[in-house]
Amino acid sequence: MTESPGEGSSTVPAGQPDVDGLVAFEDPQYRAAVVDLLGAIAYGEISAFERLAEDAKLAPTLEDKVAIATMATAEFGHVAPLRERLLELGADPFAAMAPFRAAIDLFHEHTAPSDWFEGLVKAYVGDGLANDFYREIAAYLDTGTRDLVVATLQEVGHSAFVIDRVRAAIAADHRLGGRLALWGRRLMGEALTQAQRVAAERDALSALLAGGVDRPGLDLAAIGRMFTRITERHTERMAELGLAS
Amino acid sequence: MTESPGEGSSTVPAGQPDVDGLVAFEDPQYRAAVVDLLGAIAYGEISAFERLAEDAKLAPTLEDKVAIATMATAEFGHVAPLRERLLELGADPFAAMAPFRAAIDLFHEHTAPSDWFEGLVKAYVGDGLANDFYREIAAYLDTGTRDLVVATLQEVGHSAFVIDRVRAAIAADHRLGGRLALWGRRLMGEALTQAQRVAAERDALSALLAGGVDRPGLDLAAIGRMFTRITERHTERMAELGLAS
Repeated sequence: MTESPGEGSSTVPAGQPDVDGLVAFEDPQYRAAVVDLLGAIAYGEISAFERLAEDAKLAPTLEDKVAIATMATAEFGHVAPLRERLLELGADPFAAMAPFRAAIDLFHEHTAPSDWFEGLVKAYVGDGLANDFYREIAAYLDTGTRDLVVATLQEVGHSAFVIDRVRAAIAADHRLGGRLALWGRRLMGEALTQAQRVAAERDALSALLAGGVDRPGLDLAAIGRMFTRITERHTERMAELGLAS
Repeated sequence: MTESPGEGSSTVPAGQPDVDGLVAFEDPQYRAAVVDLLGAIAYGEISAFERLAEDAKLAPTLEDKVAIATMATAEFGHVAPLRERLLELGADPFAAMAPFRAAIDLFHEHTAPSDWFEGLVKAYVGDGLANDFYREIAAYLDTGTRDLVVATLQEVGHSAFVIDRVRAAIAADHRLGGRLALWGRRLMGEALTQAQRVAAERDALSALLAGGVDRPGLDLAAIGRMFTRITERHTERMAELGLAS
């Protein structure tokens, strides 16, 4: 599945690093995996925009509303460079997004916040989980794609706002802390469920993690370590919010 | 009402144009009017963002959804420079927006689109009406404020998208054209109703149009001509969409 058919026609001189992914993109399965990945991230950002704009309605003050709307527009701002890159790869950006709509929409349906604070925790924890996951995958990509993915995942810079609001609310109402801790576990569980669904359905994307010509892959132990890292960072984020995980 | 109390302490040398509005801002009523105007525009942009994000849900395709979300984020992008300018003027930006929330929220409540096409027409016609009105007022402002207002009102550049979608839909269903023409009249009527409400409540803003020291004002005939211009441009926009007004 991960053998490259195009090694003989490599356009990268022997001994040179494959910075632009020229060898990698000769493998149609690698190209398909990158198109999948960029499509998934792009739809994820559109979807994050929609949900944050929806959460903005729950904001208790106009200041809070503007803070959440600022996060929403920052997420949406990532979509244009992803669309451009998909076009450069000869892919239809919207067709590339289509296979991921069901999983991402289901994640959001199953984790619709019932109040402002659930929305804040979801924005912070959900965004963090997605970023960690894509960043892990980015390590197995050609440099150009990796740089694009990492730039897309730049913090939108509102962590301080969310941490401040959630910590203040928990201090004022300890039962809220218990409820939001459960909520954080539910977000993690639902994210894993949908990620597994995508992994089962998208062969090229799964094969990416197994490696290919000029690209290192992951064995089962390494995949286990990856999930341990993602879980640890989730726990750290929950702690930043003052929540047990 | 429009006499300046601060002429004797003018910081602008005699004979120099009042480019920075230094003389104008010595008049506390002028400053109050500018704070009102920037607050109204800022809340209008936040509100436009919210409504466009809401309309995005009605989009028939993901492409259409992204086009509307792009308009929404462009509107929201105007808020930050308005907030900065309000802070420079020593005003609390959110306090400056507060007096306009009721009128703008009522406008949107009374003109909630019932489908995707009503949303498109509202985005195009409503945005155009607001821009025309603010641009007319901007002519009576100091250069610095005028430049900020005009920059804020730059076209968000999606007219072609709206015109294309609405014209195609009317061509396919002529009854839709009749319904959307009525809808355009309702948007205009509701905008005028709420503008009159604001004019009645905000003395400083109304006084702005009457002029002041070093600022020309409008007599009733001139105000009449202003409304004629705004109505004419509304008619032109409706015609661009293929609609009678």
